[in-house]
Amino acid sequence: MRTLRITVAYDGTDFSGWQVQPTQPTVQSAIEGALREIEGKPVKIEGSGRTDAGVHALGQMASFRLENPIPPQNLKKALNRLLPPTVRVYNVSEVPAGFHARHSATAKTYEYRIQRAETCPPFEQRYTYWHPFRLDEPAMIAAAPFFEGERDFRSLASNDRAAQMAEIAKTTVRTIYSSRLSRDGDLLIYRVRGSGFLYHMVRNIVGTLLEVGRGHLSPTDITAILDARDRAAAGPMVAARGLFLVEVEYEN
Amino acid sequence: MRTLRITVAYDGTDFSGWQVQPTQPTVQSAIEGALREIEGKPVKIEGSGRTDAGVHALGQMASFRLENPIPPQNLKKALNRLLPPTVRVYNVSEVPAGFHARHSATAKTYEYRIQRAETCPPFEQRYTYWHPFRLDEPAMIAAAPFFEGERDFRSLASNDRAAQMAEIAKTTVRTIYSSRLSRDGDLLIYRVRGSGFLYHMVRNIVGTLLEVGRGHLSPTDITAILDARDRAAAGPMVAARGLFLVEVEYEN
Repeated sequence: MRTLRITVAYDGTDFSGWQVQPTQPTVQSAIEGALREIEGKPVKIEGSGRTDAGVHALGQMASFRLENPIPPQNLKKALNRLLPPTVRVYNVSEVPAGFHARHSATAKTYEYRIQRAETCPPFEQRYTYWHPFRLDEPAMIAAAPFFEGERDFRSLASNDRAAQMAEIAKTTVRTIYSSRLSRDGDLLIYRVRGSGFLYHMVRNIVGTLLEVGRGHLSPTDITAILDARDRAAAGPMVAARGLFLVEVEYEN
Repeated sequence: MRTLRITVAYDGTDFSGWQVQPTQPTVQSAIEGALREIEGKPVKIEGSGRTDAGVHALGQMASFRLENPIPPQNLKKALNRLLPPTVRVYNVSEVPAGFHARHSATAKTYEYRIQRAETCPPFEQRYTYWHPFRLDEPAMIAAAPFFEGERDFRSLASNDRAAQMAEIAKTTVRTIYSSRLSRDGDLLIYRVRGSGFLYHMVRNIVGTLLEVGRGHLSPTDITAILDARDRAAAGPMVAARGLFLVEVEYEN
């Protein structure tokens, strides 16, 4: 049995997220379906984490075990032939037995794209969150780094009660290495790298930054929001369409 | 009665082209549906020309007559509120009575995007034609300007017999002001500006350039292909997804 790791990019628009669901199309199901054709029997894959419906990935990682001796480069081609064009495998590599895309991950980077153009280009409406309204961008840019550090991010947990309870039962402490917002043409781009993220955490951070942009919060309020350890203290969650899982890092 | 002109961008992927069809979603139907809500009765619009299913537009133009005195800027906002996000109105302007988006057009520019990356990014599969195979790009670049000039383009007419016959009955002579191919990162971009184009002509030119890239034709064969005035002399038509109507020009 070999252990393999794949790097996958996908347009999440037409998927009900990453994780297998009984009747909905998901990215994991699409990849498992392709692997089943190659292996001749079911193959279960482990993603570095799930992404929600509408969330995209530039560099999602997944691992699985395979008996088929097909070389990595050929497996990549076979997968891309079998998968829909909205899911692309960019890399396949052999990894040591015991490697697990989720457990072995040491850091993740997400990007959230806010479209500031007066009219959202039709080619970007699947990939950006359109917000043409007045925002105090310098305040938002100043607020973003306040999320950095090792902290209890319970205030930014999901409103989904079951997910929140499961996370609180373990720990809601995470380390954010970098949390920055910048302008790139018509886009306001939030980029965050951390040891891990709570469910919906990035979208809740961006929703909170938007509250700063609207003048409802000031940059220095962020610390108090985190200290409150209360979901109600932070801003509302933003739409999935602007979110990209950019990179997953592993040791070595 | 006012006469108005709109500039429209659209993602053609989910439309059965521009022109109204009885049961399929088309861009023209979407815009006419929105205008009907604003005017309170049917409004017929004239596009600068039809685009096929899957073809996109950055700057399609359309004209129509309206009784409603709504200011152009408000009409633009109302249309964008009523239209799906895949169709966006960028400009609305008052034009003299008698203006007609098709008859008044003096030039059009199209762009065709060939994706050369080994793996087509999932976010570009709707907007580029993926062709990762070996191509003699310098030969294609050298061949592109051979389409320039005032010529009979019958060799590049559509295989659609009815459309071809209708065009031949009038004239298949057009003037191409500029016909150039260039590399931009992973994209090979063909840009053509002309007085007008036969149905499928741009996609047939690109198909012919690809035959040059494959070594089946040399750049200097283009003149003979045009002289043949025979559709069979040129290359096969390429996919719609890479084609964009970039700009329509008018006098004044």
